Amino acid sequence: MLEGTLAAITPRDQAFFNSAKTRADNLIKPVGSMGKLEHYYAQLCAIQRTLKPRVDKRAILIFCGDHGVFAEGVAVCPQDVTIKQTKNFVRGYTGVCALAMQAKAKLYPVDIAINHSVKLAGVIDKKIALGTNNIRYGAAMTRQQAVKSLEVGIEIAQNAIADGHNILATGEMGICNTTPSAAILSVFSGLDAAEVTGVGANLDHTRYLNKIKVVRDAVKCNQPNTDDPIDVLAKVGGYEIGAMAGAYLGAAAKGVAVVVDGFISTVAALLAYRLNPHVRDYLIPSHQSAEKGAKIASQMLELDPPLALDMRLGEGSGGALMFNILEAACYMGIEMITFDEAGIDVV
Amino acid sequence: MLEGTLAAITPRDQAFFNSAKTRADNLIKPVGSMGKLEHYYAQLCAIQRTLKPRVDKRAILIFCGDHGVFAEGVAVCPQDVTIKQTKNFVRGYTGVCALAMQAKAKLYPVDIAINHSVKLAGVIDKKIALGTNNIRYGAAMTRQQAVKSLEVGIEIAQNAIADGHNILATGEMGICNTTPSAAILSVFSGLDAAEVTGVGANLDHTRYLNKIKVVRDAVKCNQPNTDDPIDVLAKVGGYEIGAMAGAYLGAAAKGVAVVVDGFISTVAALLAYRLNPHVRDYLIPSHQSAEKGAKIASQMLELDPPLALDMRLGEGSGGALMFNILEAACYMGIEMITFDEAGIDVV
Repeated sequence: MLEGTLAAITPRDQAFFNSAKTRADNLIKPVGSMGKLEHYYAQLCAIQRTLKPRVDKRAILIFCGDHGVFAEGVAVCPQDVTIKQTKNFVRGYTGVCALAMQAKAKLYPVDIAINHSVKLAGVIDKKIALGTNNIRYGAAMTRQQAVKSLEVGIEIAQNAIADGHNILATGEMGICNTTPSAAILSVFSGLDAAEVTGVGANLDHTRYLNKIKVVRDAVKCNQPNTDDPIDVLAKVGGYEIGAMAGAYLGAAAKGVAVVVDGFISTVAALLAYRLNPHVRDYLIPSHQSAEKGAKIASQMLELDPPLALDMRLGEGSGGALMFNILEAACYMGIEMITFDEAGIDVV
Repeated sequence: MLEGTLAAITPRDQAFFNSAKTRADNLIKPVGSMGKLEHYYAQLCAIQRTLKPRVDKRAILIFCGDHGVFAEGVAVCPQDVTIKQTKNFVRGYTGVCALAMQAKAKLYPVDIAINHSVKLAGVIDKKIALGTNNIRYGAAMTRQQAVKSLEVGIEIAQNAIADGHNILATGEMGICNTTPSAAILSVFSGLDAAEVTGVGANLDHTRYLNKIKVVRDAVKCNQPNTDDPIDVLAKVGGYEIGAMAGAYLGAAAKGVAVVVDGFISTVAALLAYRLNPHVRDYLIPSHQSAEKGAKIASQMLELDPPLALDMRLGEGSGGALMFNILEAACYMGIEMITFDEAGIDVV
């Protein structure tokens, strides 16, 4: 399934991209004056192969999982906040729920590796394990489990598309998942843990210094092969991170755009990009997370997030805020007229 | 009318601001993790004196006027683009029209100083003059006209509020109005023209250098009194700039928030701020305009625009994009629950 998905991803349709760019250039405004909206319009045109793209059917895929490295004191919350917040996605109480309500987006909460064996009502059950192993002392998961996490993401994304959604966003819930994210980023960037590790959900300085050491140890202990993204995911990753990477691939294979959230989502996007670089044509950034390392991950993907809101929540919150901006970009391309269409009387 | 409005502006309600901040801190998320959304929520609570603010009735006030300094070659477009685009606001063809359609915002296009005597169907007629005088060689307008422009803005804002709108944004149309905006900013900041003048709607380098000289000459020739904002407006300003400043004041006096657009709108906000610093409590930034000088103007107001979209369109386009983000901030405060409300079972 993974191999088939990777093979099905094609580069964006350059003819539509160029036509859309030309149209944007000819709208009755100074050339380029609508900035990134013009790029998003062209990108959506190229993805949807139309000059009238739509982003009105919105879904946010939220993958929830736990992490063995929690034992190393890298989080401020108890681990069961993962399961509690997952239940709260169903109840509509969390940050992304509120933003999704405003944006009229449907949530798909998925249990991929929550450290409880109970089944959660309203949550899609795709549990692979009761969390990862502690990456400080060994691999997070087996290679087969890593592939499985990618395939869960592919499946969930493609189910959301089959349900009629024309734009997706990724989100996650997993206490201490900035730790494996920093480890993945350290491997792919070649940067030391200190340069890619942030304070997560408000770690104090002592715990922050410990977190850096844990990230460094995880990379040193596991020696992931930087040229083999599945090896990196298996050794220092997380199930929800793999699933988000899979979601990008699955959406791209079906020709649907996906909005990337903050730090963890962007690291997952980097993983997907290393599996097939064409996936980037389908990715749209949202907010510049305040988490250290987020900027580095964005730059490696050449994504330039337009929202500077100092957010560091995760859950897919950036995607929820981005949907209306993308729709505004579509309205620009569809509702504005060009100098040609206007005629001499109008402009 | 201006005096009465200035006297009616009170500081934001600090009790509501503090209650809202406390509520935001206690929502089921890491403290501060929703960044600027938490601030916008508290600001809107303080302005509307409720913990359930609403920004669902949206209006964009677009003030349109011409500029005598056009004769100095500071624009790439012919001057009659001002009237043509004003007509296009009514037809629904321009950039802000498309974005306002997406955001379900009503437009109020106002002719305050278009250089044509014809009345425009669908445009509010508040014409004070057929454009300003050429600021390179003398005052833009009389002091009485400057006061009148502020009062037009107050009136239009308060009419929009009387029509039931609970959130406003300002916009403008006026070929070459980045020139008087740069001149105003040069006066208020004390910076030389070269530091506050941008390329507007794509000026080439030769014309850009000329524009800097024109801005410098305008300030030198008029010697505006930096401690007298009305003198600055009259000498190197523009009618639509005065009207936007008036709109901020008029909205603040009625306790309604206003979204500031890009460079010209922000300079107008600076003018309003110099008339009554409490107006700032009612201002919400939108996008960081790509126009040089915009950042300086924002910093002088301590406004930190959250949208990095590389836009430089004007027309109120930033406000149109900001409405949904502000509504998302309201949903955060209203729909999320606090740790107290959640009880032990939920979090």
